[in-house]
Amino acid sequence: MREEYLIPNSLTSEITGRIHNLQRGMREKGIDAMLVTSNVNLFYVTGRFFRGYAYVPIIGEPIYFVVRPQTYQKEDNIRFVRKPEQISELLEEMGFGQPRNIGMEKDTLTVMEYQRLSAIFDCPDKPNISGLLRETRMVKTPYELNQMRIDGDHQVNVYRQISGLYKEGMTDLELQIEIERVLRLEGCLGFARVSGNLMNINLGSVLAGANADNPSPYEFAMGGEGIDPSLPGGANKSPIRKGETVMIDMNGAFNAYQTDMTRVWTAGSLPEKAILAHKCSIEILRTLEELARPGIPVSDLYMKAEEIARSWSLEKYFMGHRQKAGFIGHGVGLELNEQPAITAKNKTILKENMTLAIEPKFVLPEIGGLGVENTYVVKQEGLENLTLFNEDILQLG
Amino acid sequence: MREEYLIPNSLTSEITGRIHNLQRGMREKGIDAMLVTSNVNLFYVTGRFFRGYAYVPIIGEPIYFVVRPQTYQKEDNIRFVRKPEQISELLEEMGFGQPRNIGMEKDTLTVMEYQRLSAIFDCPDKPNISGLLRETRMVKTPYELNQMRIDGDHQVNVYRQISGLYKEGMTDLELQIEIERVLRLEGCLGFARVSGNLMNINLGSVLAGANADNPSPYEFAMGGEGIDPSLPGGANKSPIRKGETVMIDMNGAFNAYQTDMTRVWTAGSLPEKAILAHKCSIEILRTLEELARPGIPVSDLYMKAEEIARSWSLEKYFMGHRQKAGFIGHGVGLELNEQPAITAKNKTILKENMTLAIEPKFVLPEIGGLGVENTYVVKQEGLENLTLFNEDILQLG
Repeated sequence: MREEYLIPNSLTSEITGRIHNLQRGMREKGIDAMLVTSNVNLFYVTGRFFRGYAYVPIIGEPIYFVVRPQTYQKEDNIRFVRKPEQISELLEEMGFGQPRNIGMEKDTLTVMEYQRLSAIFDCPDKPNISGLLRETRMVKTPYELNQMRIDGDHQVNVYRQISGLYKEGMTDLELQIEIERVLRLEGCLGFARVSGNLMNINLGSVLAGANADNPSPYEFAMGGEGIDPSLPGGANKSPIRKGETVMIDMNGAFNAYQTDMTRVWTAGSLPEKAILAHKCSIEILRTLEELARPGIPVSDLYMKAEEIARSWSLEKYFMGHRQKAGFIGHGVGLELNEQPAITAKNKTILKENMTLAIEPKFVLPEIGGLGVENTYVVKQEGLENLTLFNEDILQLG
Repeated sequence: MREEYLIPNSLTSEITGRIHNLQRGMREKGIDAMLVTSNVNLFYVTGRFFRGYAYVPIIGEPIYFVVRPQTYQKEDNIRFVRKPEQISELLEEMGFGQPRNIGMEKDTLTVMEYQRLSAIFDCPDKPNISGLLRETRMVKTPYELNQMRIDGDHQVNVYRQISGLYKEGMTDLELQIEIERVLRLEGCLGFARVSGNLMNINLGSVLAGANADNPSPYEFAMGGEGIDPSLPGGANKSPIRKGETVMIDMNGAFNAYQTDMTRVWTAGSLPEKAILAHKCSIEILRTLEELARPGIPVSDLYMKAEEIARSWSLEKYFMGHRQKAGFIGHGVGLELNEQPAITAKNKTILKENMTLAIEPKFVLPEIGGLGVENTYVVKQEGLENLTLFNEDILQLG
């Protein structure tokens, strides 16, 4: 039997660095210890997906409490448990005193989970650490950026094949299914990890023509009807018609991380108005690529994008038509929708090595979706594009 | 623009019936009103997926508070809101008094969501309604059973094609990708709706040979390594070898509901021991199909299954080998893992029209997974099988 470590050997210094970053944040916020509980954050502090808990003290190594699987190598900082109630006793055995306060993930723990876990610790003060974890994860390490560069390369490899997957007479859904197959053959995991319990999505969105204007229950510029009321969004079996666009925004998760990328295709020529809207999106991206540097509040990006759309007289179609979205982009990494959301009001200051998906999009009601989305890294000199690929409206077939 | 109703016209009497069932449960438990908040339960009380809230009083129609999309037809019992804080004022305007208590979904609401929603209602007593909703959903209506019959037919259509998708030299993942394509062409939504925030899965599990014995972070009999540590489970690019099994358990969601089904294939002949374990699984299913009737506790099913495995001297491999699962099946419907879990301790009494996925499985460490899973409806005369398909070990190619 192969030996398997909870923290893969290749990641030990990476994980130590992340823990130090978290501990710096804990000191700033006066947090004594924290209990990490969500899948994504347990992965962040181990590089592994397991069922259990991580206790992160303000100094020193975390203790990992593993419920399942119990087949990892035994190590000093791992305890195998059947239930979370064992945590307090085990911590005491290991010489940890009762912390003055213990941070809990209150944005993801359910009420019942919280009641149970909260009872383990005597201290009355249990600050919410969801924000601290999100903020720490916003700035990527070199290892994480490398993972996302790998994602971007794979996603571009897939997008390169899309034109050739089209056959005349196809519906949006038929095209999407062929893209999904190519994605999976390229190494896509087949699962979209999103933040929050609201968003239910499959491997992406292929929107043909007027379907882009079907409103979404999510904060999306373009929704799409989907093929069943239980999963609104994306393809609705619309035939791909000449004179309309096909906007393609498919999954980019080829490892724990992901990139987010949109391009527009068409099977024929498009009206001038469509070409104009698409050019405007590219103009916005070029402008933001220069503007977005460490020190700038993300709201500046939103305001500039809106200003450009207005100056092109396209505000009516900007970020949706029947229903609009209030953002032009978002953080991306382990989750598709990370912080910061690029909105008019978000004053988060950009830092080097944040990763942003920026997607200035337009919906022209009879024609479809237009615009480009890239995933970027914030660098001193502006944005580095992880999804470099032809941005023109592309021809299907 | 097409007129769109929050509750589809075809579902009005169906939804009314579900509300009556919920209100009966509320009376039994002394609950005055409830606020439905989770995606799956909002779908259950509307037949629609939207962002918002449903207020269900103990008598009369629910009031739906819709955040997004705001494009539905206006109706007497719909209010469009920007934020949940508007709910209390709107209820007062509509003549609803303050309830003595209000049930909240404490198994799915996060701590922060609950704090916000809880502040809307003055009454101090806020019972947990997650259990009531789960119990009500356990027993399916004729409409729901029909949806699940449709799922079963589609899933069988896909499984029928699996042998022909195999090409010599394929890995488990390559075979899975071709099955996923056929699933999607058959109408599968491409999304696995599961209960709880723990389980992250893609469209299913194709386990070749010894990979079935790789332990899972979930309560699964067989895990599989997966292709990335961030998504453990299922195919790990094992070549499909003669003398080993390929256990296939792929998504069955062709509408809001789903069926769950497993069959075993092989590319060559198998040792006698494998054939024995597979026969034992079928023997367990035949026995439980007779035993499972309204009035029987689900624990009886578990105990009988274990007894049969033991009498065949196969207990060492039953429901896992390196790591075992403590169940032999589960409810299924809108979510893949509904109540009741079929465990040794679950005393839930079977009722007519409950739906169960029963999956007595074995892991033979060097050979792979064996056994059959079907989705059933509990009927007076025993179980009705929704996934009728050849249960033998099937030949690939």
